[in-house]
Amino acid sequence: MTDFAERIERATLAMKHHGVDALCVSIGSDLPYLTGYRAHVSERPTILVLDADGLATMVIAALEAPRVDNRPDVFTLAPWEETEDPIAIVNGLLNEADTVAVGSQMWSRFTLDLQARQTTRRWVDAEDLMAGLRIVKSPSEIELLRAAAATVDRIANEIDGMQFSGRTEADVSREIADRTMAAGHESIEFCIVASGPNGASPHHTASQRVIETGDAVVVDFGGYQDGYCSDTTRTFVVGSPPSGFESAYAVLKEAQESATAYVRPGVTTASVDAHAREIIDAAGYGERFFHRLGHGIGLDGHERPYLVEGDDTVVEAGMAFSIEPGIYTAGAWGMRIEDIVVATEDGAESLNTSNREYRTVS
Amino acid sequence: MTDFAERIERATLAMKHHGVDALCVSIGSDLPYLTGYRAHVSERPTILVLDADGLATMVIAALEAPRVDNRPDVFTLAPWEETEDPIAIVNGLLNEADTVAVGSQMWSRFTLDLQARQTTRRWVDAEDLMAGLRIVKSPSEIELLRAAAATVDRIANEIDGMQFSGRTEADVSREIADRTMAAGHESIEFCIVASGPNGASPHHTASQRVIETGDAVVVDFGGYQDGYCSDTTRTFVVGSPPSGFESAYAVLKEAQESATAYVRPGVTTASVDAHAREIIDAAGYGERFFHRLGHGIGLDGHERPYLVEGDDTVVEAGMAFSIEPGIYTAGAWGMRIEDIVVATEDGAESLNTSNREYRTVS
Repeated sequence: MTDFAERIERATLAMKHHGVDALCVSIGSDLPYLTGYRAHVSERPTILVLDADGLATMVIAALEAPRVDNRPDVFTLAPWEETEDPIAIVNGLLNEADTVAVGSQMWSRFTLDLQARQTTRRWVDAEDLMAGLRIVKSPSEIELLRAAAATVDRIANEIDGMQFSGRTEADVSREIADRTMAAGHESIEFCIVASGPNGASPHHTASQRVIETGDAVVVDFGGYQDGYCSDTTRTFVVGSPPSGFESAYAVLKEAQESATAYVRPGVTTASVDAHAREIIDAAGYGERFFHRLGHGIGLDGHERPYLVEGDDTVVEAGMAFSIEPGIYTAGAWGMRIEDIVVATEDGAESLNTSNREYRTVS
Repeated sequence: MTDFAERIERATLAMKHHGVDALCVSIGSDLPYLTGYRAHVSERPTILVLDADGLATMVIAALEAPRVDNRPDVFTLAPWEETEDPIAIVNGLLNEADTVAVGSQMWSRFTLDLQARQTTRRWVDAEDLMAGLRIVKSPSEIELLRAAAATVDRIANEIDGMQFSGRTEADVSREIADRTMAAGHESIEFCIVASGPNGASPHHTASQRVIETGDAVVVDFGGYQDGYCSDTTRTFVVGSPPSGFESAYAVLKEAQESATAYVRPGVTTASVDAHAREIIDAAGYGERFFHRLGHGIGLDGHERPYLVEGDDTVVEAGMAFSIEPGIYTAGAWGMRIEDIVVATEDGAESLNTSNREYRTVS
């Protein structure tokens, strides 16, 4: 049995467990998880319908059907022509289903359209059901995450040889992205270069700001390699660190490493977040670490579990997630250290192993 | 009044017209149309709630709030912290609304979550309402589309100076994308290079196939410039054209130009499609033109109206859409010519004006 056939079988069992009679998945990573095919994001919907008997049908624009690697043991293709109504086809496949689970990222217009055609059905989010399948990675998935991490580590270790001062953030970002593509990634999903005061905004991307001597620079980048995601953050300093930076960095590094060491099967993801937060709080930086500690990773860059207050996922061997505390001083600087780790029976293994010290660049 | 304030006012009027008490828009182009801000696609939802009185509130992760250009005359920011529940905040803002229109591309999980919290509301797709606002472009929007088209035209006119044979499609695609970025685009959304038999699949992207002498090569590329989209297709021939190519190309070019000339206020978009199709049918190629003639364009690469059987949108001055017939011979070659045109009172103006002949490359 192929991986995909086995996943369809597990999904069918999970449907029974969740009281779901049919599952519809579309754009996002549920579809490639079950079929190997990632749908084009478009007004032409691609929807896989899985029924309670484990029969899977992929409804797809005939134009896009040639892109699919057909796997007759896993699903049947149902291509629709330009003047056909794909939602009517999906509605027909749902047949007698009372409860339908819908892929979390499917466009609302398709869900609302399906709801309007059959108003007695119950519609639920497929997130819990699919996360239950995807949250623990198989050995082959972990190997793919490891390979993606190795690529960004190689680039992260080269960054201190790059020129920073006098260049724009956007220019440095482009160089890091190009190097990562050349090293084996098939796409770059983000390449944050946040210098000086911009570093204090965790979701700053990369601007036309010219990097100056004395700046701290947060570099957070990742993308896809063989269908799986990378994501790592390291912080650099141009010349000498700004005021208050060194002592905060020591706390940050301790929090990141201690949280990694704290991970083991049986603890909750919220408790890993709390562990890192206590260290940063105790050193007086609590107010300046205002985002969650991390997020799951796999076929999606962000997926279950989340390392945040309120997420009571119990860690199991095979879960993969980021550990990425940050400390931010508004108007001045930011710092973050991020590794992807995989939980094992013996604790967390960091897939990212590039130098975690802040490094000096020119 | 700013453009955005005026758009919020028009949206509020449209809500009354559609019998909608509140509007929720999220990822995609409805949000930037109304507020100037394009939301990050993420599990952290950004949702603008517009109520029946025209009050707009943007519910956004506090982390992402610094990315927003605040426009207090247009909307109020409601940032939520990492441990808050954004859907509860949105639900609170919906207040007494009986009928809520939901942005077409919003993730289904957020819509289903909202539905579960208040089960007596009616939920409708906001597509009709928002398309009603967006489908006719303002003069300033047309200038932005014109500028984006001028950039891809400049590159399209340079392509015949590029080497094709002996290089992979992916390599040629990268060069075209890089040139387009250097010429002023902020992103490339697609850069199809479909050579030889790959050209017969309209949604082929760019592969490791090495381009050979005798190939026809379809090049279809576009991206964003100042927030608006470009999209153009030209076909090239490496050396001498393959068998049957030249006579088909003459038909294709006639169909593309004749359909453009046919556009005027008052005709339906379906009739423009039918007009092109008749020419291609009459020449005996009908079976080999199996996709719609075109799609609207603006803040989205594909938006209303669609030029396809069944879309009875009546053309008005200010509508912008592609006209892109193709002829495809399975296993051998493909060809397509695509311009973005804007309807005016006097007919269609092509924003793309690069050479429409097939051109020879080495």
